[in-house]
Amino acid sequence: MSTSDPVINLQTLIRCPSVTPAEGGALSALEAMLLPLGFKVERMVATEPGMPDIENLYARLGNKGPHLMFAGHTDVVPPGDEASWSHPPFAAMIAGGELFGRGAVDMKGGIACFVAAVARHIEKHGMPKGSISFLITGDEEGPAVNGTEKLLKWAAERGERWDACLVGEPTNPDALGDMIKIGRRGSVSGKVSVLGVQGHAAYPHLADNPLRGLLPLASALMDPPFDTGTDNFPPSNLEVTSVDVGNPATNVIPARASFAFNIRFNDTWTADTVKAEILRRLDAAAAGSPLRPGRDPVRYEITWAERPSHVFLTRNNALIASLSEAVETVTGRTPQLSTTGGTSDARFIKDYCPVVEFGLVGQTMHMVDERVALADLEILTQIYGTFISRWFDNALLP
Amino acid sequence: MSTSDPVINLQTLIRCPSVTPAEGGALSALEAMLLPLGFKVERMVATEPGMPDIENLYARLGNKGPHLMFAGHTDVVPPGDEASWSHPPFAAMIAGGELFGRGAVDMKGGIACFVAAVARHIEKHGMPKGSISFLITGDEEGPAVNGTEKLLKWAAERGERWDACLVGEPTNPDALGDMIKIGRRGSVSGKVSVLGVQGHAAYPHLADNPLRGLLPLASALMDPPFDTGTDNFPPSNLEVTSVDVGNPATNVIPARASFAFNIRFNDTWTADTVKAEILRRLDAAAAGSPLRPGRDPVRYEITWAERPSHVFLTRNNALIASLSEAVETVTGRTPQLSTTGGTSDARFIKDYCPVVEFGLVGQTMHMVDERVALADLEILTQIYGTFISRWFDNALLP
Ligand SMILES: [Zn+2]
Ligand SMILES: [Zn+2]
Repeated sequence: MSTSDPVINLQTLIRCPSVTPAEGGALSALEAMLLPLGFKVERMVATEPGMPDIENLYARLGNKGPHLMFAGHTDVVPPGDEASWSHPPFAAMIAGGELFGRGAVDMKGGIACFVAAVARHIEKHGMPKGSISFLITGDEEGPAVNGTEKLLKWAAERGERWDACLVGEPTNPDALGDMIKIGRRGSVSGKVSVLGVQGHAAYPHLADNPLRGLLPLASALMDPPFDTGTDNFPPSNLEVTSVDVGNPATNVIPARASFAFNIRFNDTWTADTVKAEILRRLDAAAAGSPLRPGRDPVRYEITWAERPSHVFLTRNNALIASLSEAVETVTGRTPQLSTTGGTSDARFIKDYCPVVEFGLVGQTMHMVDERVALADLEILTQIYGTFISRWFDNALLP
Repeated sequence: MSTSDPVINLQTLIRCPSVTPAEGGALSALEAMLLPLGFKVERMVATEPGMPDIENLYARLGNKGPHLMFAGHTDVVPPGDEASWSHPPFAAMIAGGELFGRGAVDMKGGIACFVAAVARHIEKHGMPKGSISFLITGDEEGPAVNGTEKLLKWAAERGERWDACLVGEPTNPDALGDMIKIGRRGSVSGKVSVLGVQGHAAYPHLADNPLRGLLPLASALMDPPFDTGTDNFPPSNLEVTSVDVGNPATNVIPARASFAFNIRFNDTWTADTVKAEILRRLDAAAAGSPLRPGRDPVRYEITWAERPSHVFLTRNNALIASLSEAVETVTGRTPQLSTTGGTSDARFIKDYCPVVEFGLVGQTMHMVDERVALADLEILTQIYGTFISRWFDNALLP
């Protein structure tokens, strides 16, 4: 079948300029690959007031269990300065054994390989011993409000159940086979406003400089560290990402100052306990600051960003083993089982079934000249194919 | 003479809407008051590229020493929300024994009283026993680039020399007679930019959050205090007045962060030594921050605001005694000799002659419903008159 070549699949997908929130023809192209393989394809449009509608795709091959889901996204980040690209970002040109284009590794490449792996599986083994589905969103790089989360809910309400999921995000730092992601830290963001009393810099006792309150509060969130890491996770880490006052007058003490922060937390915490710890630190720092001797506690307000990302860790050994062995079989390398890095849509999937992530090498993702070695596309297709066979074999063991 | 009534003088001046940089007719009105008294009046226009031209006035009565200068400004700050005023800000209406209007206390009132005091002195004693001059700028409330500093230089280049100066700014916190200013703290402002390395909040080890550098640097400038004050001055005090990053993305560690500060320093320091101490504190804090364990020193850049205000203290006892005794004679109160508060144009005058400051009660300055009690105008005129007589008597003592 023509879809058994991941290079052709990927070229087709890259040539669809599907910068979030545009579908760009990418889901239609994917649909056209899946229909001949026997998939039942459904397109689901998610809506949210004040946001653009987003097209998503759900496709299933087979109607019995066990049921393996492949998840991912066809949307891509903007190409940036197109003139800086060696080859146009949506031309899918091949040069020096590499395929250039936005989405090559993040993550049209992963989709292209999984389609090819399924096509080859059918060629070689016939229909899978259960069901395979594609859960593909057009809103992963954007606000992710109209994406995987809603698509999962929509499918589950229609009776869909899954036994395991592989997300095709680029997980390998340097070379194919480096790393499987088996969990992700959680993420919580917030903004703290410190209230002071405006005044003249020459009369500080008549004012209350909110920055004398803010500096200790912001420091207290970054030091000491929240933990030293766990068996499966690196240490939790909080970064203050912005401080903003916007006071142009050097002789005026401002009335208010604010800062924003983001914490990536491991399984020492839940979103709720990490929020409580943040409040405890803020209150302790507010109670007595060396920058405000003899003053009342710092007055502050905190607002949490909506929808924290919950920490998760996949403990399904059959799933991890199937994938890990597939990587070893094809590449001869033992992948690291990691929980590092940012959040991914796996944070939504983990509420439905065990989920792991494995895809291409991420080095050029989101950059100018995003590209993938043709050899890597072939290797990943083989890994995915081996994984599919092993996973069904494992799942059907008595 | 009609100019012997400070109320009429002040009404005339208030009705000139001389919001900086507009002359508004105020200097012409003053000229019209001074010419009949025998003053030689000169108008000097100061210019600076990129700034509006500013009209200034220098007037001298007499041509021999000793030479007493009265200094001040006719420009006023904007009235703000005119609808909030009980009486229009440029109407100079009298109600309940008070005269309402922008500039009533800061400091057209001081000028009106000094003109009246000179007029009465001439009526009673004839021409003064030396010279009296008015050095009046239209740029005190603005950038003060085209004001007193240039006017002094212009007059000095024409051979003018002064033995003492009284600045008519509102120096009294609560009641007439409270406070004479005999010095002012210096003021230095600067901006510190901390350089980091941008990155993703999930990969902090690949980034270098400039806020982890900024927080300790900014804190180090505010704590510990620079000194505990001196015999004549309150403690030096530094305020961080703004911190700005402007990073809208909570999952991104910014590349750069900056903060602004202003220090009011006493005679423990000079502008140069206080700058050196600031650099010492920044370098010490940059060398090792608990928020950046194991990292290289914080990289920062500092830019100083142009033209620091130098600290000064007037030690001319004859000048201070003449004024202090005049206040006591008229009000029965012993004024506090103070160096508190912000900077004033006395910072420029102190390079030419000893300078002190005394004027009305400052409570309503820069506010809606700026106003002065008619009784205070009469009392201040009497104080100024008594001061003029005493100062010439003292200056002419063998
Ligand atoms: Zn992605
Ligand atoms: Zn003033």
